[in-house]
Amino acid sequence: MQKNRKNMPKGNNKDKTKEPKIRQRTCDLFGVHAVGEAILNPKRHIHEILVTTQGEKQIMPILRESEALNLQRPEPIIVEKHNLEDMLPDGAVHQGMALRVQGLYAPSLDKFCSELEKNNNIKDNIFVVLDQVTDTHNVGAILRSSAFFSVKGMIVQERHTPEIKGVIAKVACGGVEHVPVFRETNLSRALEVLQNNDILCMGLDERGRMTLPEVMEDKNLSSYSGIALVLGAEGEGLRRLTAENCDVLVQLPSSGGAIKSLNVSNAAAVALYELNR
Amino acid sequence: MQKNRKNMPKGNNKDKTKEPKIRQRTCDLFGVHAVGEAILNPKRHIHEILVTTQGEKQIMPILRESEALNLQRPEPIIVEKHNLEDMLPDGAVHQGMALRVQGLYAPSLDKFCSELEKNNNIKDNIFVVLDQVTDTHNVGAILRSSAFFSVKGMIVQERHTPEIKGVIAKVACGGVEHVPVFRETNLSRALEVLQNNDILCMGLDERGRMTLPEVMEDKNLSSYSGIALVLGAEGEGLRRLTAENCDVLVQLPSSGGAIKSLNVSNAAAVALYELNR
Repeated sequence: MQKNRKNMPKGNNKDKTKEPKIRQRTCDLFGVHAVGEAILNPKRHIHEILVTTQGEKQIMPILRESEALNLQRPEPIIVEKHNLEDMLPDGAVHQGMALRVQGLYAPSLDKFCSELEKNNNIKDNIFVVLDQVTDTHNVGAILRSSAFFSVKGMIVQERHTPEIKGVIAKVACGGVEHVPVFRETNLSRALEVLQNNDILCMGLDERGRMTLPEVMEDKNLSSYSGIALVLGAEGEGLRRLTAENCDVLVQLPSSGGAIKSLNVSNAAAVALYELNR
Repeated sequence: MQKNRKNMPKGNNKDKTKEPKIRQRTCDLFGVHAVGEAILNPKRHIHEILVTTQGEKQIMPILRESEALNLQRPEPIIVEKHNLEDMLPDGAVHQGMALRVQGLYAPSLDKFCSELEKNNNIKDNIFVVLDQVTDTHNVGAILRSSAFFSVKGMIVQERHTPEIKGVIAKVACGGVEHVPVFRETNLSRALEVLQNNDILCMGLDERGRMTLPEVMEDKNLSSYSGIALVLGAEGEGLRRLTAENCDVLVQLPSSGGAIKSLNVSNAAAVALYELNR
């Protein structure tokens, strides 16, 4: 495997028998989609690639693709399945591959927003804001949908959001590599930054008087350069202050069904679909 | 609590000290929404209600509501939190309440379909068919969305689908009580039953040549009395035979994002939203 690659990170595969050293550490990303998209992301620095013999077969074409893109990637270290599992959360669906990586760089939200291309189409600058959504399956699925619907960035509260790796990255199926995540201390201040950049802050909330499609038909939207979809936690919904700081609260249209709300990642997907129509 | 309720199931709270007997058994439903909706479902027979002292406070208004509806419900048994947790899956978010219940009765799919009211609006008879979707979070979220979007029934493969209780019911947030689930041995035969009842079987698949909105605009749809949305497993998609047995394969419209597919429950929610527009 890629014997002559230059600039390989030090100490990653010099001695494949050094298992104890490997075993003491944890991995950041696992599973074929999360690992594959990270390897192919030019912005991602990868310290170590760990694979089982099964995983090695699957990772080879991805590594060849990364080579064609001139990306510097370390040579995979082959480990036993049980050793890989020692480095991962219990029950992790690793599919024989895992990575140790550096976190992705994200600029400040102010800088990022000021550099946005502001066309006439507000649909080109869509953001997702999570107000205390903490469930890893939901955060991961929302990142995946965000990448599917070309969302420009996701904004989360530093204090309540787990690190964007592990299960979140697995569930996001590579979405982590495509949607910048801004970890903000103060969500109200983040909404202010968005608003200062002419981005309409739209809270999804059962208290909303209008439905999302109704708001999207509003002619006055043309003065905005983007939309931030603000989503609250399961059960609790948006916190009072967050709801107050939104420009508008909207509901999803109901079909009169017996259950009155969707799972937050399902609601996010439906709302992003409607915003993209 | 409701001391004088008649016709109480036997042996559920005669002696609150009989903990060992309780502890050996498992519970079917837990969490405030799953439990609350079950208590208020006239079709649900409930054997036992188990609550912590915290859970008791929350369950009282629900029980009063069920009493107003003339539903026969057993008196709650108060248990210690750790005893409740012994009866539940690890890490279950029980919110201090759990139920032992009888499974809901579902008629045969043939009978159910033959008794559907067939109006001119195909949107009134929407079904969801799951082809080997097994992840409990996904099945639960799809049931919740199905209840939100007034889906008439969900069809699953007997052999590959976990029982509709526990985590699935928790994630479904009560959706279980509102959407009949048909457990079929043979999915191809189930699609045939739907087709014999003039229900259009629409597979959601990346191989689809048309998008879902394009198909919905087709004038020829007026000859159908309903739509069955057929969803495949994560990663694998629809099995070959299932895809062949669908009347049409459709895609969700892409916005050109970096990730080419949605999580299956997110895809289901978007498709059901589009079908209901």
